[in-house]
Amino acid sequence: MTKETLQAFIGTWLPRLEEEMRRTLDCSEPALEPFYGMMGYHLGWRNAALEPERLPAGKRLRPMLCLLACAEAGGDPFDALPAAAAIELLHNFSLIHDDVEDGDETRRHRATVWAVWGVPQAINAGDGMFALSFRVLQRLRGIGVDERVVLDVLAHFTTTCLELTEGQYLDMRFEARDDVTVEEYLRMISGKTAALIGAALAIGARIGGASLEQVEDLRQFGRSIGLTFQIQDDILGIWGDPAMTGKAAGNDILRRKKSLPLLYALNHPHAGPHLHEFFVEPPSPQDVPDVMALLDEAGARAYAEGELLRLHEEGVIALARGLGDNARQSALYGLAEGMLQREA
Amino acid sequence: MTKETLQAFIGTWLPRLEEEMRRTLDCSEPALEPFYGMMGYHLGWRNAALEPERLPAGKRLRPMLCLLACAEAGGDPFDALPAAAAIELLHNFSLIHDDVEDGDETRRHRATVWAVWGVPQAINAGDGMFALSFRVLQRLRGIGVDERVVLDVLAHFTTTCLELTEGQYLDMRFEARDDVTVEEYLRMISGKTAALIGAALAIGARIGGASLEQVEDLRQFGRSIGLTFQIQDDILGIWGDPAMTGKAAGNDILRRKKSLPLLYALNHPHAGPHLHEFFVEPPSPQDVPDVMALLDEAGARAYAEGELLRLHEEGVIALARGLGDNARQSALYGLAEGMLQREA
Repeated sequence: MTKETLQAFIGTWLPRLEEEMRRTLDCSEPALEPFYGMMGYHLGWRNAALEPERLPAGKRLRPMLCLLACAEAGGDPFDALPAAAAIELLHNFSLIHDDVEDGDETRRHRATVWAVWGVPQAINAGDGMFALSFRVLQRLRGIGVDERVVLDVLAHFTTTCLELTEGQYLDMRFEARDDVTVEEYLRMISGKTAALIGAALAIGARIGGASLEQVEDLRQFGRSIGLTFQIQDDILGIWGDPAMTGKAAGNDILRRKKSLPLLYALNHPHAGPHLHEFFVEPPSPQDVPDVMALLDEAGARAYAEGELLRLHEEGVIALARGLGDNARQSALYGLAEGMLQREA
Repeated sequence: MTKETLQAFIGTWLPRLEEEMRRTLDCSEPALEPFYGMMGYHLGWRNAALEPERLPAGKRLRPMLCLLACAEAGGDPFDALPAAAAIELLHNFSLIHDDVEDGDETRRHRATVWAVWGVPQAINAGDGMFALSFRVLQRLRGIGVDERVVLDVLAHFTTTCLELTEGQYLDMRFEARDDVTVEEYLRMISGKTAALIGAALAIGARIGGASLEQVEDLRQFGRSIGLTFQIQDDILGIWGDPAMTGKAAGNDILRRKKSLPLLYALNHPHAGPHLHEFFVEPPSPQDVPDVMALLDEAGARAYAEGELLRLHEEGVIALARGLGDNARQSALYGLAEGMLQREA
């Protein structure tokens, strides 16, 4: 699949995915409309007064990976639409709850669900979206996907739900700790970020008719690119060009975000103790150059970029196992390459 | 099934249910132990220091109904154990989140999960238990339940998850309103309380080999007794004997709880406006006799007891349709009768 074919693929399937998701949120009972309305608000379909709104829908990266994996395995992406919708709904359920848990008042330049409707309704709206993600999976059976495949998809999906909550648990625990290791961090993002991307690919491939080995290869590919996605984020959060990222220089330093480069440097024998001093209180913008110098001394950027390449390579090998000779021509390969080069 | 056989049934299956639930929460990764530990605390298996504790396990009403329905349909309750565990875990997930949403600091004389570990961890622990309820359902396939049955069970279960969140949404909305009707209230408890009891029976019956009609009859029976269960609670909350309920006389009046008798009276042409005056501020214990007199004037108790009997009758009819001549001998019939007579 060339870059042009990928664009055409997205042009065809993104609107169908949105339609599948909208139908899942349809509500015929007037008293419940505001309940589904809160979820529609989070997804960018309504404003805070619950009037229709059409915001840019976002990339819908995870569900598009699911549909692509289905196509690459030789299946019809139509069969994977309910699963793709489920994956995006699950992702968004976790965002609604993360925003409550982190106390974040804005997301994508809009007030978060809890900031508009309060914490109790936001928790429950998230629970509702969690339930809807399972409900739309029921549609697989309705459109004639083999029952054994449906059960396999449900098994993958359920495991992923649990991994998400495990990852979130670790993330919250780590915030309260000063001595998190890079291994612990990689374990955490493996649950919180990589598991769902792995599941998106595995589920798409399974529905597309891939063998169990291929499904596993695509999951590993997904997990690897999920990790590279997060680590690239970590690198950009410190060294990204503010003109490209739209965030302040050294943004993650000011937020004391325990990302991979910082954790690596905090564990460095010499730079580590100095860095710790800077992080007792929230650092000021004037501290950023000193912190950057300590990160350099620890070799934090080189380490993170090395991990990025290592994981990318692992992913590409898994993809080659899964797709054989077609791997290099695959849109999935192109997407993985693109992630390495992104600057925002 | 006589009362003695029912006791024997519970004696046999309650420990197996606990075992099934415990196995579902088993954790082999040390870093995640406290995550599953919070859930174990909520279930009464650990104290707040996460050390093992053995509290009375509770009645586990919903899962026992599931196992009973399986047996009454002619099946082996063993096959329904994972589903029964899923139902109890789903119920407990909703309790963990309800406690956060309502700000309740104690449950069953212990601090709630959020009161011990904070709101963010409690939200996430609830999400984890939600995911575990789906995970244990996967075991149905492992023990050899027919794949079509497993998919039907998952469909029932998923619909119920959604109904729970819809009911909770309505409950929270109603708290902010002064003009809730009894119809709206019955709709709300139908989602929040009755749906899960209906699902417990429907799912047990389906696994036990019941026909689709029987499954539907048992669901209706379950919904009806779920509603009577809640309405009996409402009656006891106002007129219950403090020596039996362990709560203050007129407890729900002091809490301004919008239960069925109160809503009925608030909508009464004469008593209603007077009652509203008492509820502008939280009433004091001295107000209770006056409020009681207004409830009497409106005929609120007679109305609620009438609804109780009407719903009970509906339930018994559905049960008779489902079980035929065996209905009156069924332990399910006895349980429904017992609910009418309970005083705590």
